[in-house]
Amino acid sequence: MKRLGTQTVYLPSKPAILSSAAVVGKKESEGPLKNCFDYASDDSRFGAETWEKAEVKMLNKCFSIACDKAKLPPSDLNYVLAGDLLSQCISSTFAMKDSGIPYLGLYGACSTMAESLSLAAMLIDGGFADRCCAMTGSHFCTAERQFRMPLEYGGQRCPSCQWTVTAAGALILGSGSGPRVTHLTTGAIIDAGIKDVNNMGAAMAPAAYETLKAHFADTGRTPDYYDAIFTGDLGALGRDIVQDLFKQDGVKLGAEYMDCGVLIYDLNTQDVQSGGSGCGCSASVLAGHIIPAMKKGIWKKVLFAATGALMSPVSSMQGESIPGICHAVAIESEGA
Amino acid sequence: MKRLGTQTVYLPSKPAILSSAAVVGKKESEGPLKNCFDYASDDSRFGAETWEKAEVKMLNKCFSIACDKAKLPPSDLNYVLAGDLLSQCISSTFAMKDSGIPYLGLYGACSTMAESLSLAAMLIDGGFADRCCAMTGSHFCTAERQFRMPLEYGGQRCPSCQWTVTAAGALILGSGSGPRVTHLTTGAIIDAGIKDVNNMGAAMAPAAYETLKAHFADTGRTPDYYDAIFTGDLGALGRDIVQDLFKQDGVKLGAEYMDCGVLIYDLNTQDVQSGGSGCGCSASVLAGHIIPAMKKGIWKKVLFAATGALMSPVSSMQGESIPGICHAVAIESEGA
Repeated sequence: MKRLGTQTVYLPSKPAILSSAAVVGKKESEGPLKNCFDYASDDSRFGAETWEKAEVKMLNKCFSIACDKAKLPPSDLNYVLAGDLLSQCISSTFAMKDSGIPYLGLYGACSTMAESLSLAAMLIDGGFADRCCAMTGSHFCTAERQFRMPLEYGGQRCPSCQWTVTAAGALILGSGSGPRVTHLTTGAIIDAGIKDVNNMGAAMAPAAYETLKAHFADTGRTPDYYDAIFTGDLGALGRDIVQDLFKQDGVKLGAEYMDCGVLIYDLNTQDVQSGGSGCGCSASVLAGHIIPAMKKGIWKKVLFAATGALMSPVSSMQGESIPGICHAVAIESEGA
Repeated sequence: MKRLGTQTVYLPSKPAILSSAAVVGKKESEGPLKNCFDYASDDSRFGAETWEKAEVKMLNKCFSIACDKAKLPPSDLNYVLAGDLLSQCISSTFAMKDSGIPYLGLYGACSTMAESLSLAAMLIDGGFADRCCAMTGSHFCTAERQFRMPLEYGGQRCPSCQWTVTAAGALILGSGSGPRVTHLTTGAIIDAGIKDVNNMGAAMAPAAYETLKAHFADTGRTPDYYDAIFTGDLGALGRDIVQDLFKQDGVKLGAEYMDCGVLIYDLNTQDVQSGGSGCGCSASVLAGHIIPAMKKGIWKKVLFAATGALMSPVSSMQGESIPGICHAVAIESEGA
């Protein structure tokens, strides 16, 4: 068995991330990571008729770029593992519907990049696939009107609000050259009882804490084992909660700990309140920023912990809380 | 590599289905399979306040019964793989939110039972898990109001319509005694261009045909290798399309071929038009009827091919077609 402790597995073959691609919208292309992305659209519609169709085009473009960068025709992929935030995950479905590639649809809310990466790595390490694509994305305009208010309503945003990132990220995994996936810690659902749909950071932070804690316990590692630890999209408020929770345990998460939702925007000038959120947030930061930095040797050992809020407008209107989930993926540079 | 042909993998360790459980609503408990299910509720609300909360209770009960029948505490499970039809898959999430078990959320529409079973079997065969639960379910009242009309509207139903099954199915997989998962054929998305949301059978049938054809090609088997072949929820109309498509290839799908959506209701007396549909349809028929029949020796070799329609109300309202998907799982009795 390839198991460590209660929630972690290790991957003896260490599947490689052969390529990564990130496609973003205008706002993301004006933020601190503006030079990281493979393609940015000036138009929130990506040239499509509706925002939903735009999200499909964005994912499709991201998938194509990832295949191109891996120098693989799509038909060389054994599986695509993908999901998104839209009801019934239509943007991933429609992006892949003409690909002809065996498709495994996922729903992990904003944790989908870590979920798809985990399953892709296990399918390769388990001997079921040579090459897989793990992908996800989100769009500000589709998410806002689905989860919150019509954009035309112009609702006020509170300080704990987060801005859904318009972005997609895709990784091609296989045997070959690239940063390697070594360990996976799959999270249980954690319900901290938060009911405020404008405070996703607080809803997801306890899940991030529990999964990171399980990862450290299962592997015997401490945070300083890693050159960098990233949570997915907690924003500034959620990030602070994670640091506080670890502080109560006497564990210091220092400068090596960052949150993708804080990195992708300039929180002082871009009017995004607590930071970025959405599947595309951690996906585009991983594909556009983290993996390329690992290839350049800036970081050798990285822990990527994408976080998701498992709610819907219906569950919230029926008075339910917002359960969170977080999956962590340990990635090492070749030769680390 | 454990691959055969383009879309199929085989599982050398042949993970066993240790237990199966099916929980259904009143209408299902009055159909031809009425004696197959572990629990039936007389109340469409399962004692809960709303239909969505009822769906949660139904899934939760099904999970508990599956664990009981496997004589395992839930904490002995390494992963739960689950999904459902509700937007953002809230019924699976809320059913599992207090379980403490690592959770992998899936969206495969009505193909989810085959998707969850496939991934659970691969996680076990790959050495990542000792025991997993694969689960899904659907509820007529939540699905109708989400995908079609408020029930109070009392809309007319056309002959090609299908009745969303109120049911959940759960399987516990691991090493031990029980029918064994031997091969998996994961489907690509197939878009036949169908846009009629009242004709899901026609939208999904081409996907069932393509996946079954790939399964036969990859394994070198013919339909008569199997004692029984089940599609998920094509209904009478979709089943006939699959038979017609194979007939054009000169392949006869005879009496060994059945559709779970046709089996679960009496199409002559239960006013369900073309038959049953929904994740819970193939899940409850597999867990309540097929697996128990295999244990009794009625069938030794079974091919289970759950089918899904990958649409949402938004995609349909934006003029999109309804892509289909189908995943096939080969199951053999012990000693077959």
